[in-house]
Amino acid sequence: MSWQGKVLRVNLSAGTAEPEPLNLDWAGEFLGERGLATKYLWENMDPKADPMGPDNVLIFATGPLTGTMASTSGRYAVVTKGPLTGAIACSNSGGKFGAELKFAGYDLLIVEGRAASPVYLHIQDGDVRILPAEELWGQTVWYTEDWIKQRHQDPLTKVAGIGIAGERGVYYACVVNDLHRAAGRSGVGAVMGSKNLKAVAVRGSVGVTVKQPKKFLEVVRDTHKMLAESNGRKGLTKYGTNAMMDNMQNFGGLPTRNFREVQFEGYDKIDAKAMMKPNARGHTNLLTNKACFGCTIACGRIAHIDQEHFTIVNRKEYWHASGGLEYETAYAFGPVVGVSDIDALTFAGFLMNEHGMDPISFGVTLAAAMELFEDGVLTTEDTDGIPLTFGNAEALTVMAEKTGRQEGFGRILGLGSKRMCEKFGRPELFMGVKGQEFAGYDSRALQGMGLGYATSNRGACHLKHDMFTEDMEDQSGNGKAEPCKKSQDRVAFVDSTGLCLFTDGTWATEDYGRQLEAACGGDWPLERLLAIGERTWNLERSFNLKAGLTKADDTLPPRLLNDPAPSGTAKGKVCELDKMLPEYYAARGWNADGVPTPETLARLGLG
Amino acid sequence: MSWQGKVLRVNLSAGTAEPEPLNLDWAGEFLGERGLATKYLWENMDPKADPMGPDNVLIFATGPLTGTMASTSGRYAVVTKGPLTGAIACSNSGGKFGAELKFAGYDLLIVEGRAASPVYLHIQDGDVRILPAEELWGQTVWYTEDWIKQRHQDPLTKVAGIGIAGERGVYYACVVNDLHRAAGRSGVGAVMGSKNLKAVAVRGSVGVTVKQPKKFLEVVRDTHKMLAESNGRKGLTKYGTNAMMDNMQNFGGLPTRNFREVQFEGYDKIDAKAMMKPNARGHTNLLTNKACFGCTIACGRIAHIDQEHFTIVNRKEYWHASGGLEYETAYAFGPVVGVSDIDALTFAGFLMNEHGMDPISFGVTLAAAMELFEDGVLTTEDTDGIPLTFGNAEALTVMAEKTGRQEGFGRILGLGSKRMCEKFGRPELFMGVKGQEFAGYDSRALQGMGLGYATSNRGACHLKHDMFTEDMEDQSGNGKAEPCKKSQDRVAFVDSTGLCLFTDGTWATEDYGRQLEAACGGDWPLERLLAIGERTWNLERSFNLKAGLTKADDTLPPRLLNDPAPSGTAKGKVCELDKMLPEYYAARGWNADGVPTPETLARLGLG
Repeated sequence: MSWQGKVLRVNLSAGTAEPEPLNLDWAGEFLGERGLATKYLWENMDPKADPMGPDNVLIFATGPLTGTMASTSGRYAVVTKGPLTGAIACSNSGGKFGAELKFAGYDLLIVEGRAASPVYLHIQDGDVRILPAEELWGQTVWYTEDWIKQRHQDPLTKVAGIGIAGERGVYYACVVNDLHRAAGRSGVGAVMGSKNLKAVAVRGSVGVTVKQPKKFLEVVRDTHKMLAESNGRKGLTKYGTNAMMDNMQNFGGLPTRNFREVQFEGYDKIDAKAMMKPNARGHTNLLTNKACFGCTIACGRIAHIDQEHFTIVNRKEYWHASGGLEYETAYAFGPVVGVSDIDALTFAGFLMNEHGMDPISFGVTLAAAMELFEDGVLTTEDTDGIPLTFGNAEALTVMAEKTGRQEGFGRILGLGSKRMCEKFGRPELFMGVKGQEFAGYDSRALQGMGLGYATSNRGACHLKHDMFTEDMEDQSGNGKAEPCKKSQDRVAFVDSTGLCLFTDGTWATEDYGRQLEAACGGDWPLERLLAIGERTWNLERSFNLKAGLTKADDTLPPRLLNDPAPSGTAKGKVCELDKMLPEYYAARGWNADGVPTPETLARLGLG
Repeated sequence: MSWQGKVLRVNLSAGTAEPEPLNLDWAGEFLGERGLATKYLWENMDPKADPMGPDNVLIFATGPLTGTMASTSGRYAVVTKGPLTGAIACSNSGGKFGAELKFAGYDLLIVEGRAASPVYLHIQDGDVRILPAEELWGQTVWYTEDWIKQRHQDPLTKVAGIGIAGERGVYYACVVNDLHRAAGRSGVGAVMGSKNLKAVAVRGSVGVTVKQPKKFLEVVRDTHKMLAESNGRKGLTKYGTNAMMDNMQNFGGLPTRNFREVQFEGYDKIDAKAMMKPNARGHTNLLTNKACFGCTIACGRIAHIDQEHFTIVNRKEYWHASGGLEYETAYAFGPVVGVSDIDALTFAGFLMNEHGMDPISFGVTLAAAMELFEDGVLTTEDTDGIPLTFGNAEALTVMAEKTGRQEGFGRILGLGSKRMCEKFGRPELFMGVKGQEFAGYDSRALQGMGLGYATSNRGACHLKHDMFTEDMEDQSGNGKAEPCKKSQDRVAFVDSTGLCLFTDGTWATEDYGRQLEAACGGDWPLERLLAIGERTWNLERSFNLKAGLTKADDTLPPRLLNDPAPSGTAKGKVCELDKMLPEYYAARGWNADGVPTPETLARLGLG
């Protein structure tokens, strides 16, 4: 009930695709999606394996509430060993693909091995086929989705796939589903490409059943009402995530020009209000908002580029409507590279969807390249004649295209910031953790965010904890360890339900528990829910330790630790990680080297 | 019940879109779709109006069974005054658009006037908007459908629209819905273009109700079973309409090289079996078959061009899967122009869908141009350097593109064969009736078809009667008038139900009556059904007479009347129209000038 009780295991080396029963004991301990996939990954591969080799395992995982009537039930996670980081990767996504995978009868899809030549997977309930994809190799995400829908003559097929970036090993290539939703970070798309797997296409008609339908309906109605009435929800619906731009600008936590600054003079040309403001021709950037499966929020944006600005669109086959700017995209193509042309940002965002790349990692890598350029380390001879100066909109769009296609200097940018900066002898210019680039929050202004970045198991990430309230209230590192640990556990639990993290500001942890009880049966008290999160976090950590990561990887770039914020509310401050990290290890029940103690592991059933 | 009882009237000059009650008295007399739209056209415009002017009226009409559970219930008709013929045009189409229009709550959509600038109509149940389409003008049918789905973020929107051919007044431009279904003949797309109406997009959620649900379910189950078990149905499902190619070749009724011959040496390279045969690379032309809404036949083909043949595809953005060859397309791009390259035919077929043109009229016009070329009337100076020799596959694909875009010699081909042949002083080379080109049956081998062509109210058409059995059994003109008249009436009735004519070989007329009774209530005895057909036919005829057509328009080209068939089972025969036509007028109750007598009109309630 609510789980389908079935895993689809595909071995691309052997050319097999077989269902197997879901391990319900594991589901009881790790729930689903992020948690359960972590357990399956742990049990199915050696963490030391080459992330781009056939021994890496790629898991698409739904949660027990995915595809149910619960609000925001469209989530799925892609869990694997990440090539960008060498750590465990967990990228989750919305849209409709995850629910459709569930409808086809599967909780998890496990992909092992490597196909001898390009293939795509076509799943129609129990009918699973590994089909040739030669005609799709070298094609974009958008072309691929259209091709599959045409080939199978079914516009309702849901497709998750990779673009050219994933085929060609861009370290931050992502998996894109439903054209503009993505399992975005840590290079999960490069893993898919390394397996010669272009896409997974699913159509399901099995449906999902819940244990107590009447009770579930009541609980869902109640939690839906909470969301519908919440101010946070209303803001997300109207403005999308890019409402954050103004907050960070005012707070002084908006990373600008590769984190040299924390406020950006052009922010109001690219913020949520700018997207809604008619230009001289009376056209707005924003066309509409758009919801994922079962969502009552609809934070997604659909935007287009005004025709007057088509000069910045350097390819004639630009699509007329694409995913619009999220805050992270706006940050990564705006302040951190110094660009404020909203049409250039929108087009670059479209290129990310089309080529299948993480905009955060691309933008922050480009920012580091711009700093290398302005420092004279790079010249136009290296950069295909394009001056990589901060603020150059053409550099943004041209390099997005070159990186997506792995041409010219795009091959360097495709390495990610860490490898690129090391290659040019300036490792300190890499702005990120464990090889993964920062999201749009400066750790000098948001101390808890800094601790979260440093300890996130998939490398720098803003979505594995929630310290906004604490960070806004207190701009020191005092007392941040315990709440950071707790929010990491809570988020890890929410990420395992099949629901969206954007409900977390409205619902208490118990509200998820009520939905689980009605949907799955059994008892789901608060302690059990939080234990699932903590168990997941510690198993991710164990994977990383076994993969070779150490305490030394829980750190931040010297710029954030040593150079004071030049302006804003945190002017003069640095990130107090040295104070927070030992407290955090202690709060977690880890030793001074950041290794979980045997007692901690035993307490969580991981001993 | 079964009718929605509502008409949507849109006046593009005034910018208004208002619902009005359906005239149920008219519905009782003319049923729906073709019949009812003919009545509405008759009551709403002057038949003398310029077909390309604002006073022409364009009607999209569903039938009472459209959108119900009845088998093949996806049909709708486009009725207007045709610019190719100057006569009443009635083109019907399948796909999903018609059912969706019904689901939105409308039996008919009536479009009047002309918009000042390009617009499209967006219908979502009662929410109807006339929206600007400047961005779509000059774009293809396929681009337009995709654009609208993206703009409204709804992949389930159904779109019927025109391509560049319709915008630019190609006399045989069609209305294409669902990418590769079309209201194909007589230039209904040029009328839409003349109104500056690029597309009609519909999404409906009102649904359709039937009068006696239980009885309807029983009748539908029974008639469905009849279809499922019928050999005719099985052949159409497996081979599609192109199964006819072999029959006509063997019979000697396959018009070849502008009707100079009646058998084609290359037929087996382009017939239904050729579509299914793997080529040297192991690829077949045919990918799959595809059903329209509610269809148990699925005669539609989906095909693609093998990569090895991409040299004949003179545009890089060729779509990877498109509508495959129907018999009429295979005839019009094959025998009648002497081409037997299946990939060239498939690509030309795709161009018809993309640009929105009738393949029959285009192919037969090209055939006449080829005869003009071989006769020395045209030279490569006229034809943009392309030798228009019979059998030239490049001429086929290049001219299809040029005609669709109205470039170079394509502007001449866009006139249709009659206007073109008259322009070059060789009117006898036009192969058609009332300005409209013949379908793929030679009237010397199929005499009843010849009579049907000559008397069809929309100009030469193979779909307004059914004389196959009679023509196969007797290759003279003896006794063809009465059965031709009867089949015309029966077909006119079936065309008014909302169901597909391809059920007509399996179901008796009474079988449609059973479905109407359960769906609509009331009594539908055989006489009533046939009277609907005869009434419709006579009202169409009355429209044409009032528009200025006369008996002189009920004729065939001299080639079919004077030049004996050179081979085949009808070798040495000509079409005996002079014998059949007076008998036909008498059977219809028309005078010797082909005008319905007052008694006939009174008998049908048209007096």
